[in-house]
Amino acid sequence: MRTISSFITLTTDFGEDSPYVAAMKGVILSIHPQARIVDLSHHIPPQDLRHAGFFLSGAIPFFPPEAIHVIVVDPGVGTERRLLYVEIDGHRLLVPDNGCWTPLVRDGATSFVYQLVEAKYWRSMISSTFHGRDILAPVAAHLSLGLSPKMLGPRIENWITLDRPRPYRHQGLIHGEVIFVDHFGNLITNISADMIPSQLNWLHVGSKSIARFRQVRTYGEAKRGTMVVLHSSSNWLEVAVVEGNAAKRMSAKAGTAIRIG
Amino acid sequence: MRTISSFITLTTDFGEDSPYVAAMKGVILSIHPQARIVDLSHHIPPQDLRHAGFFLSGAIPFFPPEAIHVIVVDPGVGTERRLLYVEIDGHRLLVPDNGCWTPLVRDGATSFVYQLVEAKYWRSMISSTFHGRDILAPVAAHLSLGLSPKMLGPRIENWITLDRPRPYRHQGLIHGEVIFVDHFGNLITNISADMIPSQLNWLHVGSKSIARFRQVRTYGEAKRGTMVVLHSSSNWLEVAVVEGNAAKRMSAKAGTAIRIG
Amino acid sequence: MRTISSFITLTTDFGEDSPYVAAMKGVILSIHPQARIVDLSHHIPPQDLRHAGFFLSGAIPFFPPEAIHVIVVDPGVGTERRLLYVEIDGHRLLVPDNGCWTPLVRDGATSFVYQLVEAKYWRSMISSTFHGRDILAPVAAHLSLGLSPKMLGPRIENWITLDRPRPYRHQGLIHGEVIFVDHFGNLITNISADMIPSQLNWLHVGSKSIARFRQVRTYGEAKRGTMVVLHSSSNWLEVAVVEGNAAKRMSAKAGTAIRIG
Repeated sequence: MRTISSFITLTTDFGEDSPYVAAMKGVILSIHPQARIVDLSHHIPPQDLRHAGFFLSGAIPFFPPEAIHVIVVDPGVGTERRLLYVEIDGHRLLVPDNGCWTPLVRDGATSFVYQLVEAKYWRSMISSTFHGRDILAPVAAHLSLGLSPKMLGPRIENWITLDRPRPYRHQGLIHGEVIFVDHFGNLITNISADMIPSQLNWLHVGSKSIARFRQVRTYGEAKRGTMVVLHSSSNWLEVAVVEGNAAKRMSAKAGTAIRIG
Repeated sequence: MRTISSFITLTTDFGEDSPYVAAMKGVILSIHPQARIVDLSHHIPPQDLRHAGFFLSGAIPFFPPEAIHVIVVDPGVGTERRLLYVEIDGHRLLVPDNGCWTPLVRDGATSFVYQLVEAKYWRSMISSTFHGRDILAPVAAHLSLGLSPKMLGPRIENWITLDRPRPYRHQGLIHGEVIFVDHFGNLITNISADMIPSQLNWLHVGSKSIARFRQVRTYGEAKRGTMVVLHSSSNWLEVAVVEGNAAKRMSAKAGTAIRIG
Repeated sequence: MRTISSFITLTTDFGEDSPYVAAMKGVILSIHPQARIVDLSHHIPPQDLRHAGFFLSGAIPFFPPEAIHVIVVDPGVGTERRLLYVEIDGHRLLVPDNGCWTPLVRDGATSFVYQLVEAKYWRSMISSTFHGRDILAPVAAHLSLGLSPKMLGPRIENWITLDRPRPYRHQGLIHGEVIFVDHFGNLITNISADMIPSQLNWLHVGSKSIARFRQVRTYGEAKRGTMVVLHSSSNWLEVAVVEGNAAKRMSAKAGTAIRIG
């Protein structure tokens, strides 16, 4: 074991009105008082693995490899679902085996995955409903102190994968869907920005055909209230309303069909 | 005075749209620029001392003793209510004398309580409505620099206590109540887990008798939408809906009667 | 360049359900792994520059000068609006040129403002919609490592200013308006506390004349539910309901007229 100057990030669906996040922080700091804890989000919608997956793919790649990322969106807590240590593209995650991290996997990338089985790095009393506090938090603290992930349990080769809807072309249109509604009500889709025709003529959101929209580079290029299509900051096709809320105006949410042509 | 490697946690009902939390952080870092500030919650419901009490009892025990916990849920700000430094079970709190910390007191535990009167550790201008910023934050910063709590004011022997409803047995049923609704809508009650019969036949939430429920160890043991009774992660009787919201379904909130048998 | 023991604060309108705040933290920590990041708020209402301005004026003055404050409330992202490094009253800000910081300027204070043009301190790929992540975050990290602000771009002498409504006297009344509704629903106005008559006879909120109110020093001096007028913790006239929500009761919001006499 060697001491590593490191920090631990937290991503949960716990909200902040309950003591669950605070308890995890206490457990980490009890084991490693010098750990630096960085909140990524505690506002993943409850048990929403797809939301968590998109969130992680927009956040984790920006971190340096010394970070340890604890992710607790865990509808299967207490059942036989496994807990994992994952290394992907140089990033280190502690996460339930529910697939929410797999949107981070790029084509050709190799993942190293260990199953957490070595209980000596866990709290001595394990509840049935809060493995974030009782297993993931103490393991993160031990890793931040330099523990090798090989000590946590066996390497495994199979894990749950979140299936991702893929866009397809049909009758001259590209068919995709909303995969994420951001805080501003912008609709982020699964259509990658390089698939967007340079001149877009058709835009359908759900069952509605949008008669008036503008294809822009950034929000400020059109007037307030205009519906616009642009490249998201993560290079997806994004549908937005300038200084407005596209999700509310179009009654759209994750899963809503998007067709362009 | 000796320098202690320490951190300061914050628990408030201030929300994050107002500048109050930020102002407290600035005051702390102005006095002790190396202080590490850990947010526990800024989403305690406004002035809700019972919610704060449950929150603290689910969070503080997990922290190491070097933490200094600042708690600002303070309906009596500016009146004659006192401000306190509390040592309980090795944990150190700065808190208004309104009882919200007393759920931390276990049977037989001794509390050391000092009243904050020494103004030289406060900001020079004291507002009437924001003692968190003007008194508690600077005192926390001085404590984190190694100041002895004895310098803060006299030790006192009496303080406000939050009364806690106790469950009781009557006509073959255990009568308790909801003491906390968590972020997922799970109902945490004042019935301790070891009081739950191994086979539960009756469950009443408010005036409703629940015809169908399951007694489980963890959420994942029953199907989505099932009402379940289980041990909470803090060992209370908890009523939940699997991947659902029990509080919404049952119109339950803190104070709602729970009867089991 | 010299290494400075420093911290970076973040104030945004990004919320916490989206990955935008987390991405900024990752960018900062990739450049300066020892940087200490302090969240001020991610709950500024979307694109609300006045709210941001009041927030900053209630938070930034309490910080020590070594802090670097990154502010991302940025309706003009991607357009020709400039990005600025600002020194005001010893505080250092990174902010879009949209005026939201100008409520920090006190009469007679001098601001040093540089325009960010030197791209070598930015991320190599600049998106059109997320300059917080691609420009402000990396510049903050470089500043925290000791970079001189003179390296960022030219000093400029003109910038956007947020106009602030001024109170005025007319027919024996002082006419002002609500400039901020805080988390508790308290109405903070643009009438400075020293303008309040020692005995207030008239209070109008919007078109309503308040028949019953009390002039108090702090909330706890009146009974629950009483409408009170007092000095806010930042020394403005504040209208509040004791343990209640004045904004909801009066249907008031930022911009609502306030008249006193």
